[in-house]
Amino acid sequence: MASNGGLNPESDDFENRPNFCIGQHDSNRFETLSDDQYRQFNFVTTPITNQHFFRRVVDLYKCHLAEREQWRQDRGLTSSQLSNQSLPAPIVPTLTNKDTSYAPSSYVGSLVAYASPWIDLCSSNPLISSISRQVLNLEVAYANFCGARSIIIPGPREDEDSRGIALYARAIQEALQVTTRANLIIHMPMYREPGLDEKAEMLSSLFADANGAEACAVKEIDLFTAWDSWHTIRSVCKYSTQLFVALRIPRRLPEKDLQDRWFAEPLHYLSIGPKTFQPNRAGHPTLTPNHQQLINHYMRLKNAPWLILCDVGPSLEDLNEAQDHLATDFPSLAEASNALKENRRPQQPPQNPYAGYMRYLERHQAPFSAMETPTLTSFQDWLQSPLQPLSDNLESATYEMFEGDPVKYDQYELAITEAMAEWKVLKKPTSQAPSNSDLIVAVAGAGRGPLVTRVLRAAEATGTAIQLWALEKNQNAYVYLLSKNEREWGGRVTVVKTDMREWQGPALKGYTAFFSKVDILVTELLGSFGDNELSPECLDGIQRHISRPHGISIPHSYTAHLSPIATPRIFADLSSRSHGDPQAFETPWVTRLHAIDFVSQKVPRHGRFQQAWEFVHPVEVSRADEFAEEEGTRFISPGGGSMTGSSGTNDHNARHCHLTFVCRTRGVTHGLAGYFESVLYAPQAAGKEPVEISILPDQIDRKSKDMVSWFPIFFPLKQPLYFPQDAELEVSMWRQTDDTKVWYEWMVEVYAWVGPETRIKVGASELHSSRKIACLM
Amino acid sequence: MASNGGLNPESDDFENRPNFCIGQHDSNRFETLSDDQYRQFNFVTTPITNQHFFRRVVDLYKCHLAEREQWRQDRGLTSSQLSNQSLPAPIVPTLTNKDTSYAPSSYVGSLVAYASPWIDLCSSNPLISSISRQVLNLEVAYANFCGARSIIIPGPREDEDSRGIALYARAIQEALQVTTRANLIIHMPMYREPGLDEKAEMLSSLFADANGAEACAVKEIDLFTAWDSWHTIRSVCKYSTQLFVALRIPRRLPEKDLQDRWFAEPLHYLSIGPKTFQPNRAGHPTLTPNHQQLINHYMRLKNAPWLILCDVGPSLEDLNEAQDHLATDFPSLAEASNALKENRRPQQPPQNPYAGYMRYLERHQAPFSAMETPTLTSFQDWLQSPLQPLSDNLESATYEMFEGDPVKYDQYELAITEAMAEWKVLKKPTSQAPSNSDLIVAVAGAGRGPLVTRVLRAAEATGTAIQLWALEKNQNAYVYLLSKNEREWGGRVTVVKTDMREWQGPALKGYTAFFSKVDILVTELLGSFGDNELSPECLDGIQRHISRPHGISIPHSYTAHLSPIATPRIFADLSSRSHGDPQAFETPWVTRLHAIDFVSQKVPRHGRFQQAWEFVHPVEVSRADEFAEEEGTRFISPGGGSMTGSSGTNDHNARHCHLTFVCRTRGVTHGLAGYFESVLYAPQAAGKEPVEISILPDQIDRKSKDMVSWFPIFFPLKQPLYFPQDAELEVSMWRQTDDTKVWYEWMVEVYAWVGPETRIKVGASELHSSRKIACLM
Repeated sequence: MASNGGLNPESDDFENRPNFCIGQHDSNRFETLSDDQYRQFNFVTTPITNQHFFRRVVDLYKCHLAEREQWRQDRGLTSSQLSNQSLPAPIVPTLTNKDTSYAPSSYVGSLVAYASPWIDLCSSNPLISSISRQVLNLEVAYANFCGARSIIIPGPREDEDSRGIALYARAIQEALQVTTRANLIIHMPMYREPGLDEKAEMLSSLFADANGAEACAVKEIDLFTAWDSWHTIRSVCKYSTQLFVALRIPRRLPEKDLQDRWFAEPLHYLSIGPKTFQPNRAGHPTLTPNHQQLINHYMRLKNAPWLILCDVGPSLEDLNEAQDHLATDFPSLAEASNALKENRRPQQPPQNPYAGYMRYLERHQAPFSAMETPTLTSFQDWLQSPLQPLSDNLESATYEMFEGDPVKYDQYELAITEAMAEWKVLKKPTSQAPSNSDLIVAVAGAGRGPLVTRVLRAAEATGTAIQLWALEKNQNAYVYLLSKNEREWGGRVTVVKTDMREWQGPALKGYTAFFSKVDILVTELLGSFGDNELSPECLDGIQRHISRPHGISIPHSYTAHLSPIATPRIFADLSSRSHGDPQAFETPWVTRLHAIDFVSQKVPRHGRFQQAWEFVHPVEVSRADEFAEEEGTRFISPGGGSMTGSSGTNDHNARHCHLTFVCRTRGVTHGLAGYFESVLYAPQAAGKEPVEISILPDQIDRKSKDMVSWFPIFFPLKQPLYFPQDAELEVSMWRQTDDTKVWYEWMVEVYAWVGPETRIKVGASELHSSRKIACLM
Repeated sequence: MASNGGLNPESDDFENRPNFCIGQHDSNRFETLSDDQYRQFNFVTTPITNQHFFRRVVDLYKCHLAEREQWRQDRGLTSSQLSNQSLPAPIVPTLTNKDTSYAPSSYVGSLVAYASPWIDLCSSNPLISSISRQVLNLEVAYANFCGARSIIIPGPREDEDSRGIALYARAIQEALQVTTRANLIIHMPMYREPGLDEKAEMLSSLFADANGAEACAVKEIDLFTAWDSWHTIRSVCKYSTQLFVALRIPRRLPEKDLQDRWFAEPLHYLSIGPKTFQPNRAGHPTLTPNHQQLINHYMRLKNAPWLILCDVGPSLEDLNEAQDHLATDFPSLAEASNALKENRRPQQPPQNPYAGYMRYLERHQAPFSAMETPTLTSFQDWLQSPLQPLSDNLESATYEMFEGDPVKYDQYELAITEAMAEWKVLKKPTSQAPSNSDLIVAVAGAGRGPLVTRVLRAAEATGTAIQLWALEKNQNAYVYLLSKNEREWGGRVTVVKTDMREWQGPALKGYTAFFSKVDILVTELLGSFGDNELSPECLDGIQRHISRPHGISIPHSYTAHLSPIATPRIFADLSSRSHGDPQAFETPWVTRLHAIDFVSQKVPRHGRFQQAWEFVHPVEVSRADEFAEEEGTRFISPGGGSMTGSSGTNDHNARHCHLTFVCRTRGVTHGLAGYFESVLYAPQAAGKEPVEISILPDQIDRKSKDMVSWFPIFFPLKQPLYFPQDAELEVSMWRQTDDTKVWYEWMVEVYAWVGPETRIKVGASELHSSRKIACLM
């Protein structure tokens, strides 16, 4: 294994897999570490306050209870009478230097602040929840003052009910008001694993007594309650971009659905306790293959989460003993902090067996694939404004990027080759006079000519005599095409500068005013959703030049597909954009969706990805204007059109679909992921497969593996739409058009099955529309 | 009965009940009426297009079908292959003068345009829905051009499914784009009454054939499907203020819940068909007492709906016959139109027996009560910005308005009288030296002195010797008080200009620097939600002057109450305000709620109105500062406080509640109605009732009937929150405070019972907060 450079940290390609940033948390730690302790971690947690502060707060509380009781007895009141009085809760005194050993320091970047686990923000006892809020505010404010970048706050307690969560969430929202630079990270379990509560609970018993210990009946585990709590917290905090999750990896992994759910959430840390590790034969800690897979999966996030090993030693005593001889060998926390800042790895040989095992996992990750280059990764979940394909002229670099995808052009070449070969075999007549039987091929929207090259190659491969036309409206690309025709294509191409919709057709040889027809029309006008860059309208405008009945359009047809997804990060991004951009939630965004969760299931009658609609070319029936004539009046203008004020000339390119998606577990959706597939050419010969391209997640590998030309499209929802278990999401989607523009509209309704026969409506989104930013025809 | 002036249209007080504006609709009418037809109605409906247009559209459709079929056969395609092609739907030709007899005219104000009932916007056949949309757009645009103020559109057909409704709603949204001045009114049944479809369906059979008639199985009636459809339509139309309902009154009235549901919707018309009337013994048409009650109820809306009598004759033939001798006696439509514009009643003796009966009902309505004056009615559902009670100085007229409520001050006087009487009976010592046993009374925030007068009266009535202090911070009101003391109170009052929180207490007679205590403190600081105008904070600031233990605060205590409501009109109002006022949905609005529906039920464990919290005065424990001391440090500032940056000095006036409201039927809530009750004085003697005031709808008549000083408060939700049947709304509400401000926060979560033991979450609102417009202390 040592011979494999990829696994050797010293080798050149070592960096081609995700880095692990490994830290340590000790729930028995009550004082901040000094710089030279814990040298073998990238970072360590630090408590914000110490035992002195804890005792002060407990004393304050006990003292207050005693006073209240005395006061109640003096007045002969019952307890409930007492609670109706506006009795002030005790006010937690401000921190002093006795209450904390945490302070601004050179190594503050390697210290992750950990808020006191003994508070209970959810408590139904107003005194306890009030004291807890005060403690949290004091600690967060102090940690922020000290320069903490991350403050971890223990999640709500196990036995919280829905009321408690609202209180917890509200307290976090308040704490976010003081964190000018620090992020708040809620430490949540992946699910509430029975019998695995961590030490955090220890000190709360003092409070539990006063609170009247709540009944802790053994219940069936509901896997999604922890996620539910998190969802409430971040919803109340309005998807703050300063709010993250530290996810506790459980000993027993839950179903895939729940793992995927958390994948989409803003994971800042993964925390792993000693019980999650299992000893191998030699007694060293290891993780199960499933755990390894989970961690490898999460590590592929654009911002890979950091790892926190909890209570895995070494203990402070061990350390103090070892300190002397460690001091020279390994970097101090300050050195680690600098390394983190510069995003490089400090030299840290694994001392701790748990950390050592994690480093082993780090080395054994699969290297980054061709689809995981830094450039492609940087596009993950990054929102691109949609193009105005007909009014924007592209720059050369943009063309170059599009041309850099061999998969797409290989498929085009294959389609053109098949079409030409079949044309010959079937002995179809060309649109030319019999005396000249060259096949006439046109590439419309030729750009810098990649499809022209492919057409020429296909003609050579099939030995087809062709006349080739290249149309381009971009005057700058036109220059490039002319030069390419001289340099590379040997003048075999007729380059025309024109909007394809205004072209007069291929002029007959020797004529300028007599025209033939096109046998094969090749275009690449497709968008992420198939028709979203006006391919149907452009092809409408040129299809009169296609010869009938044999003329071919490549692509032959394309379909648009949808799937509802959860994507909290994109929702947070859009929420912050929406202040400046009122159309943010009405825009179909092109984005390389990655940290998402497909919320629906594939079930017998409904897929996870469902087809919205299809376009087939050429359209066989001519324009609708013919219908508009009537006896008595010479010509009556079409007056209708589904859109007001339009005359309906593009109505045949309008579409509507209504799709039902099935969700088994409860969750939330933030919008619809859109994809497309296209049949470039469908051979007529029996048994021949169509030549296709696809960006559908479940089809791309089969139909056009590693094709990167298109990212998916995302239709957002203004409000996250919650749905209960056994729900159905009813998606209504429109491709709308008046005579001059094309846009989309979408709406989602939620229904829940509450019995074998009964389905009730439980919610709906607004009707969204991109009309205001419509594509201009 | 003729002797009763109130029922005589000629008498002076006749106007003191709602006017009926009565119109007529004939579903067999295909041409617009001329000015002098139908003289006995305030308005009539007119079709926008005629039979000629209808036949043209049907021909267009048939012709298109035939062409499609021919085309399909020519190519040997199956029907499903056909539907994948982008075949253009036919374009409906624009209107010509042959297609309509409707035109701009002097009497256009008396014509209500009625869109063609033979279209089907919901059709699952894309050809039919496309043609229908085109027809609707043409008709609405033309009616708008002609000057129509109202365009009625037949509601979605009975057999529509949820998909169809989305199409219908989207088409209406589109139609709203052309109506620059006209309102669109959707003609909806109150519920889908089996066997009572109106004639509108007649012509659709042509379409139904082509469509493949859908199975119309007999199902159990679901009373709320019609409301559901309406809710979807107006939600898709984003609560447009140009969108209204014409509500068809059914033959058999449904349960009260549904009647109340529609009461809250924007009712523009009530339509009544002949089947809803029942002949009395003499054969004349009448309505059941329940129907009468319903109409009387709806007529109390601020904008009373107009009545449309459908298909109740006279027929056109009858009319043409009668036209000659009618012509001179009754106003023409143009005259009626002018009368409508000027909001006066044209002279219209009832000719039509149905119209005559409605006029009879009009005369027999209960006259407007004292609570239905034009001023009070104008406040219905009108949003008032909340006061800044401590920083705004009121004007005299505002005081005058507040003083004009005898009920409130009578209750105060009663409370003060009871307190003084009981003081004597119980022989409580006053706070004075025994040598001077005058009771010391202070009115804090005396305004223009109404409570001062009441205190003096109570002292006289009980023969109590008092020293009376009146405190007022408003320097202008102070002048008024001084003058009133001279003129009316005989100098018996010591008037002090001070913020009550800064008052030094009642000076001992003959001293300026020695102070006594107050025995009875009287204040009127309550807001609509009890504590929302900072009564707790003000009383905190003055309560140190109340003598202990016998001193009394009037009011003694107050409670805040909540109930979730549907109020589409206020939601629409806030939606349009929110463009200019980003805090519109975060503001607790004072408003005289009227056109609302209480969505929750009173059930054994949960009321329709539930108490949020209580304040009791004086607060018995002094400020929390005492807790803040500690050994070792001389004085440690309080540091906590539930709000960041606050030191928690007002935390004892923070409150939180979590309430569960039960909803039986499905519906939507737009926010929380807030109310208060107050115990002004609670006698200690057994068997004596407390003196109370209340604005709770189910208590006000018992506790303080006709008290008008406070309207309810409304806590809006940004997004209407839909809930299914058997739902529970969990309301979390906070009264939040830092050291300087007080504000509210609220959130609603929806749960549904889906089995005897299973409750699932189905949705939640955002957390709303009025922090940005908080009351300054």
